[in-house]
Amino acid sequence: MRIDTYETLDSASPRDFADKITIVIDTLRATSTIVTAINNGCKEIIPVSEVEEALSLAQNLDRDTYLLGGERNGVLIEGFDLSNSPLEYTSDVVKGKTIILTTTNGTKAIKKASSAKEIIICSMLNVKAVADYLNEVKMDAVILCAGTEGKGTRKFSLEDVITVGAVISRIDGADIDDLSYASLLLYRENRHDLHNLMQNCFHYKYLISIGYKDDVDFCLQEDIFDILPKYYNGTIKG
Amino acid sequence: MRIDTYETLDSASPRDFADKITIVIDTLRATSTIVTAINNGCKEIIPVSEVEEALSLAQNLDRDTYLLGGERNGVLIEGFDLSNSPLEYTSDVVKGKTIILTTTNGTKAIKKASSAKEIIICSMLNVKAVADYLNEVKMDAVILCAGTEGKGTRKFSLEDVITVGAVISRIDGADIDDLSYASLLLYRENRHDLHNLMQNCFHYKYLISIGYKDDVDFCLQEDIFDILPKYYNGTIKG
Repeated sequence: MRIDTYETLDSASPRDFADKITIVIDTLRATSTIVTAINNGCKEIIPVSEVEEALSLAQNLDRDTYLLGGERNGVLIEGFDLSNSPLEYTSDVVKGKTIILTTTNGTKAIKKASSAKEIIICSMLNVKAVADYLNEVKMDAVILCAGTEGKGTRKFSLEDVITVGAVISRIDGADIDDLSYASLLLYRENRHDLHNLMQNCFHYKYLISIGYKDDVDFCLQEDIFDILPKYYNGTIKG
Repeated sequence: MRIDTYETLDSASPRDFADKITIVIDTLRATSTIVTAINNGCKEIIPVSEVEEALSLAQNLDRDTYLLGGERNGVLIEGFDLSNSPLEYTSDVVKGKTIILTTTNGTKAIKKASSAKEIIICSMLNVKAVADYLNEVKMDAVILCAGTEGKGTRKFSLEDVITVGAVISRIDGADIDDLSYASLLLYRENRHDLHNLMQNCFHYKYLISIGYKDDVDFCLQEDIFDILPKYYNGTIKG
């Protein structure tokens, strides 16, 4: 089994995913939100790249069957039901609903991976379920981090890379590339104090500055949900 | 002072360099070769992106004034005088000569940074000179790693990132981005045994497999040359 990791959704091209299992990670917060919503019983999640696409899709659905979720600049989009905070996606809110989700990086990363054989949604919350699956299927995999957009250029984000390390540390005997290896080393050294590590990270600091301390605390919990959401035919299901 | 690091030459756009000092790093081996050649008294180095460009440039020069250097797939280019091995750029070979150099990643990274206010060539060999300069000028800087090309997509390369960490560890009080911070952590944990760290790295292993063990040993030496090569108006000088 070989594992290659890409640090942002811009750093990989469609041919890098072809015929491979692709693991998409956006720790803060899109994939954490998706994993939480699936765990809490939503019917499905439809990730879309643009706000207009979300609104247009919603027009074809009955109002009581869906929720519009997502963020721009980290906050609720005007006219949407939910932001990109996993804490809003509780069981009583999402149960049985279709969620149309658009975020700055994470949902775009999922769409970017469309040429993959299979697309798995991963966060720190379900990291063991993802690793167990890779150990079981023993197929070549690509890990695609969403990265964080700042001034137009998407950048390497340590919160995604640490989640990569948490996956890789649970994999039995894979051939890994340099970024997978660096992620593993960073995770091993810092796993017992992720909050301390994160205090120097751009997006962690930004989310705390706009009032999302509870979110980042929630998203850094390791292996609390034993679920494996997959994206297939335009929707994510558990 | 703010420092942003980009993991490959493809991960940054010209606007990321604008009005900033840009530090270009290709540890294995382009910037190590450049630093060595400058240290050993070459007149100048002209980095070019393509082999044809190197040959065409050479046609305008007297044969005894220049050397053609570089690599494709890590080895000597047909008709060239030197490969991309810093060990070939000895004083008796390069003294007083113009070197036209083309490599797969490093020289392209230098050209990519053309919009920068100032372009500094950095390797592990001259890491302290580069950090001393940044501490002195106290200006915002960008560190551009060349990365390594594999199957078309340039990838994060740990040997570049470790050199970034070696620079950052010598900087006094900069505001740094996530990759600069990750580089610092990786360097701090592994600085006393870089060869052990590198044994899992793609390009390190490749160079050893094609017979360049002495090169990688040479390139991983820290702070052996107190020089600061700069790229200006198409040429690199010390």
